[in-house]
Amino acid sequence: MSRFWSPFVKDLVPYVPGEQPKLARLVKLNTNENPYGPSPKAIAAMQAELNDSLRLYPDPNGERLKQAVATHYRVRPEQVFVGNGSDEVLAHIFHGLFQHDRPVLFPDVTYSFYPVYCGLYGIDFETVALDEAFQIRVDDYARPNGGIIFPNPNAPTGRLLGLAEIERLLQASPDSVVVIDEAYVDFGGESAIALVDRYPNLLVTQTLSKSRSLAGLRVGLAVGHPELIEALERIKNSFNSYPLDRLAIAGAAAAFEDRDYFEDCCRKVIDSRERLVGELTGLGFEVLPSAANFIFARHPGQDAATLAAGLREQGVIVRHFKQPRIAQFLRITVGTPEQNQALVEALRGMCG
Amino acid sequence: MSRFWSPFVKDLVPYVPGEQPKLARLVKLNTNENPYGPSPKAIAAMQAELNDSLRLYPDPNGERLKQAVATHYRVRPEQVFVGNGSDEVLAHIFHGLFQHDRPVLFPDVTYSFYPVYCGLYGIDFETVALDEAFQIRVDDYARPNGGIIFPNPNAPTGRLLGLAEIERLLQASPDSVVVIDEAYVDFGGESAIALVDRYPNLLVTQTLSKSRSLAGLRVGLAVGHPELIEALERIKNSFNSYPLDRLAIAGAAAAFEDRDYFEDCCRKVIDSRERLVGELTGLGFEVLPSAANFIFARHPGQDAATLAAGLREQGVIVRHFKQPRIAQFLRITVGTPEQNQALVEALRGMCG
Repeated sequence: MSRFWSPFVKDLVPYVPGEQPKLARLVKLNTNENPYGPSPKAIAAMQAELNDSLRLYPDPNGERLKQAVATHYRVRPEQVFVGNGSDEVLAHIFHGLFQHDRPVLFPDVTYSFYPVYCGLYGIDFETVALDEAFQIRVDDYARPNGGIIFPNPNAPTGRLLGLAEIERLLQASPDSVVVIDEAYVDFGGESAIALVDRYPNLLVTQTLSKSRSLAGLRVGLAVGHPELIEALERIKNSFNSYPLDRLAIAGAAAAFEDRDYFEDCCRKVIDSRERLVGELTGLGFEVLPSAANFIFARHPGQDAATLAAGLREQGVIVRHFKQPRIAQFLRITVGTPEQNQALVEALRGMCG
Repeated sequence: MSRFWSPFVKDLVPYVPGEQPKLARLVKLNTNENPYGPSPKAIAAMQAELNDSLRLYPDPNGERLKQAVATHYRVRPEQVFVGNGSDEVLAHIFHGLFQHDRPVLFPDVTYSFYPVYCGLYGIDFETVALDEAFQIRVDDYARPNGGIIFPNPNAPTGRLLGLAEIERLLQASPDSVVVIDEAYVDFGGESAIALVDRYPNLLVTQTLSKSRSLAGLRVGLAVGHPELIEALERIKNSFNSYPLDRLAIAGAAAAFEDRDYFEDCCRKVIDSRERLVGELTGLGFEVLPSAANFIFARHPGQDAATLAAGLREQGVIVRHFKQPRIAQFLRITVGTPEQNQALVEALRGMCG
């Protein structure tokens, strides 16, 4: 603690991202990256920007990207907000839409950045327990709140909530903003963007880091009613006029435009996930139903922390959370068939 | 205003960046970009990252870039903070270091984003008048304050404050953070980074958007005592773990490493500036002494807004601010010799 710090800084508990190991040759299944690279058209679009025009500021509004997202989802560009990764978009949402007298609600087991944002902006929150099968019960959210947020499919569980349930939740809280964080939706869910024209309190966030294989480029977005988008634009324009660089705008727009590559890539990951679930079940794991590019699994006879450490010794990194309810689970990113096989072989030695 | 907004959002007055015209063939001298492209080594470094590795998250700490900055300025990497443009770095500074009981001080004529940050984070501020020659008088800052910030050279005036004066100011406010915003320092000033080891309350910010020709890439930085840097890291890690993408980290680091290209580029801009000052003086303009890559000039017989409009009709864009004290000035970015000549010819028709 320094006397120079703003007083709240001493109590901040920052988010801890999954490890980005500097060693090559590891089988890296810990941060839910896509095992396949981005669309060649995205690479080509960035290549076309890699020249002296980098001396010029980018379009502060990222219109080319907003248009690509709007076309993909059949919404209007003024319903789209873009930012430097969905984490930045989420930060602006907490700041601009969640500072009310009532607490923000999110699940007890969910993306661990949410309480961090609350700490950053001084927002009260309450967690709502998932049920015994780690599912969201929407009736539990029908109570006074200053906003609701959860990933769908949820992380790190991978469990999906259907759109009918999301509509029930939206109808029960018409006076607060409901944010559906769809970081993983393309691997098995249906986007709630289909509902934005009917619910002015619905905001849907997505990222290009997972299904579009651009974690290294930092692009995220939100789709919702123009009034919600305007709050985010006001925050953004009071924070950083140009959050997306010229390469990011071009690469992200091209990634959205290449629907064939995107769909093919998602299909391969889904197929690998289903095979991996089968293999792990065969080794005695209990695997939660996943609609994401990761699975959440526990072994009744093996301690999860011990398994994670053992995998690491064999060059395979997965993610283990120490939080009580999920301390016996491993979160395993779906890799290429070869990576998944390496994982299964390593586990076979410990659980077989 | 929407009932969904956090209450403070309705009063936000966002920053308005200079226009980014979509028409080509304009002589664009309105946003202080470098007329020369980035270092070929920076382009090559980005080229090397333009591949399937973009599926992976970047280094959340940008260590390669911190090391390059540390080497350039002979400081330690833990004295360096990096972010998505110096605007993001400045936002984190206001949030993490300027929320105190006393007002933040900055000049009455300065970077117009500073009061916007104060609005975003609910920070009180007072402006301190520049003297009649548009210079900062450091004695006027020797009063209770929760922080001090100004660009050096100042913007939009271009006037430089010497390091001895900065030391006097640091000594007069040892209990608050003094931020020297060196966006333009490489075009004629001496960096206050030379003082960071002696003043724990000094923080220096820089950008790669001007002297390193990378406005389109969005990279900024701060250098200071590790305790100040830690506040910024805490904010950053509670906001967005990965603010710099893989291309930005690589390109910015390479730009810092290519000292020859950087120095040559600065020299060319400085030479052009001196020639341009001579030409404008010849047309009857009063030009403030500039240590930046822009000049701030007024014509005793011509209205500035009329001149700006007339230039625009001839395809030359400069920046005009409506603020009372400077409403008769034009801020003109130093372009290539050809661009500067086009400006001078256009002005000659109006002022000759």
